[in-house]
Amino acid sequence: MSVTAARGFVAAGGAVGIKAGGRLDVAVVATADGRPVPAAGVFTSNLAAAAPVQVSREHLRRAGGAASAVVLTSGNANAATGARGLDAARQLCSVVAAGVGSGPHQVLVCQTGLIGVPFPTEVLGNVPAVVERRQGGPDAGDAAARAIMTTDTVLKQAVAGPGLAGRSGGAAGQSGSGQSGSGRPAGSAGTSGASGTAGTPGWTVGGMAKGAAMLAPDMATMLAVLTTDAAVDPATLEAILAHAVGSTFNALTVDGCTSTNDTVLLLARGLAGPADPAALAGAAAEVCGSLARQMADDAEGATKTARIAVHGAATDAQAHRAARTVAESLLVKTSLNGADPYWGRVVSELGSAGVAFTMARTSVRYGGIAVCVGGEGAAHDAAAVAHHMAGRFVEIECDLGMGGGRAAVLTTDLGHGYIDENRTTS
Amino acid sequence: MSVTAARGFVAAGGAVGIKAGGRLDVAVVATADGRPVPAAGVFTSNLAAAAPVQVSREHLRRAGGAASAVVLTSGNANAATGARGLDAARQLCSVVAAGVGSGPHQVLVCQTGLIGVPFPTEVLGNVPAVVERRQGGPDAGDAAARAIMTTDTVLKQAVAGPGLAGRSGGAAGQSGSGQSGSGRPAGSAGTSGASGTAGTPGWTVGGMAKGAAMLAPDMATMLAVLTTDAAVDPATLEAILAHAVGSTFNALTVDGCTSTNDTVLLLARGLAGPADPAALAGAAAEVCGSLARQMADDAEGATKTARIAVHGAATDAQAHRAARTVAESLLVKTSLNGADPYWGRVVSELGSAGVAFTMARTSVRYGGIAVCVGGEGAAHDAAAVAHHMAGRFVEIECDLGMGGGRAAVLTTDLGHGYIDENRTTS
Repeated sequence: MSVTAARGFVAAGGAVGIKAGGRLDVAVVATADGRPVPAAGVFTSNLAAAAPVQVSREHLRRAGGAASAVVLTSGNANAATGARGLDAARQLCSVVAAGVGSGPHQVLVCQTGLIGVPFPTEVLGNVPAVVERRQGGPDAGDAAARAIMTTDTVLKQAVAGPGLAGRSGGAAGQSGSGQSGSGRPAGSAGTSGASGTAGTPGWTVGGMAKGAAMLAPDMATMLAVLTTDAAVDPATLEAILAHAVGSTFNALTVDGCTSTNDTVLLLARGLAGPADPAALAGAAAEVCGSLARQMADDAEGATKTARIAVHGAATDAQAHRAARTVAESLLVKTSLNGADPYWGRVVSELGSAGVAFTMARTSVRYGGIAVCVGGEGAAHDAAAVAHHMAGRFVEIECDLGMGGGRAAVLTTDLGHGYIDENRTTS
Repeated sequence: MSVTAARGFVAAGGAVGIKAGGRLDVAVVATADGRPVPAAGVFTSNLAAAAPVQVSREHLRRAGGAASAVVLTSGNANAATGARGLDAARQLCSVVAAGVGSGPHQVLVCQTGLIGVPFPTEVLGNVPAVVERRQGGPDAGDAAARAIMTTDTVLKQAVAGPGLAGRSGGAAGQSGSGQSGSGRPAGSAGTSGASGTAGTPGWTVGGMAKGAAMLAPDMATMLAVLTTDAAVDPATLEAILAHAVGSTFNALTVDGCTSTNDTVLLLARGLAGPADPAALAGAAAEVCGSLARQMADDAEGATKTARIAVHGAATDAQAHRAARTVAESLLVKTSLNGADPYWGRVVSELGSAGVAFTMARTSVRYGGIAVCVGGEGAAHDAAAVAHHMAGRFVEIECDLGMGGGRAAVLTTDLGHGYIDENRTTS
């Protein structure tokens, strides 16, 4: 249950032949009636942005922040493909628009796969059949989420919001592969005052995502589509999405590489009526945060997920920079792989992060246990630190002692698995 | 032959007990008469600078850009060691100063090893015996270079300058372990007009270095000491060293980590008389360039050395930034490991490097063969590219088509070896 959790959205997943062997390679998410609704997008900052990113930006602009459908394909990034690539992305939108009955500029497009390979436009004729299969309900949401998987090993879905009250799974529940496919609860006995059975239930935000940069490099893209049935105007929706992405997907680093295709979309169909913007922003951030964590946990080759928290920085921005420097350090990431509590690497990265830093004010904790205080080693329970480092989730907290700035970044370890996944594209 | 190639310098290497098992762990380079000579240093930009870096900076400042000796130790970084660490570094300088007969502020200190472990000051009593053994000639230079090796597998030494004419090895010759230990030729039949046998020979620049960030993480530091017998004032010497480092050590990236202890020193004893500053700068850059290449080639775990050249950037600084972004990309480095000519990763890194970039103007060459032209894949001889990628040295050239800026960065591949070297410190 993900993009179809919010009422009024339908979805489908299928195989059109971009990937060999009949593997799923296309997903469609659309409004049930094909009408455009407020939509917002956050796209890669990479100046080598792929054709679908360019086309989606253009369509959002031309449609005034509205969309009726999103089409997602995997197996070909349609990046570094020149004018032909732009044509292909536009054709894909047109085919889907014809199927759902909207204008082509009201369809957004996401693609992921190998860079520099012309998109096989001969598959376009197979897309209408997938569009035809679109429907509501959790199974359709699962099918769409499954179709955008590349080397992901589990579906990545999340839901949040008062509309969920009484549903199994609760807020920001993670739907593992098949584990929540028992139908869509109708919101009985909601605790938020909203009832889902009739009248106006509370609103819901649902989302699906694929990938993380630690997946095979030809699939290094992260794509996410969120839907909500809260009523919200495009400008507010854009602000909500930007905020949600900033504290979640933008605070996740696997290898520091910014893909040519990264895209996060949020469509809002107001069937559940207005939502408190702060509450909606919170739910969107909750969904994005859950999806980001699922990406980190499922990053191929990774054996650990680590949260690098920095506080006491001069500013929040400096805290983020310091946390990201530690999180992207090859030496820190390899030490996570080896469960090695060598805090010297962390201090060294903090000192070279380009932020205000004074060794004598710096402290570092592993799993809550202080290993460095005042810039020097601190006596500590080494066995307890070793026990923490041996776990699947590692927490490293750094106090710079310079101010009130704080931030946290999620990262993974670096081991043989990453090398094996990424040394060749074939 | 390295730090003793220039006349008037003596050196020694020995074991004082910092490392276990009687392994070499201290080196001394000094003027033969113990008198201070013009000296310059380039130190890590890491704000968590180790005690020896702080003390060397302080000594250079107090001595007005002069030094009589350099002491280098391996096995303990003396970083994150607080006030006791500063005391230990100062004591080390004092012990060496007493041995060579100079003031303690005229001794510079370099240390490398584990961060956060108090320096074992009980070894200081063993240092004078090593200082006593200092002498001129290639064997002493080799001993010093050997004593600073950590997980280096070969000595890293280089020499350049007109004083070398007629010597075996030629300019910037690399002295592999033991392969040039047949005594120091006296410069017979010099081709530069300078004769080394009597009178005023041409000047020489010699240097030794250890490490690269890809070595074991507890030894992640790069240290280099250069000497010359050219006569040059401290200010010019500083400018010459800064220039040499900028185009060599600062254009080498193995894992993007900036150590707490990185130090490059250059001492100039004017026995060979004045040198043309441009020629001296060229020779210093030649020595640093050779040492940097030796570091890349010997980086543990690395199976490839790659040169990432960017031209057509808006400025040289943007070219450097773009080259460094490509050179530090985990995806590019793993592709080097797998000899995979997937240029999509290179273009993606260029697009996210934060420099002026237009896809349609971008071209990429592997080993001189164009694989991407005008932002799209170009027909090319795939077998020839594969052959190039299979070699030990890989050349990737990127043309941004935006201006005249150019730069090149040396890097290594990322494979299992790096992980295995770095996942634990024990």
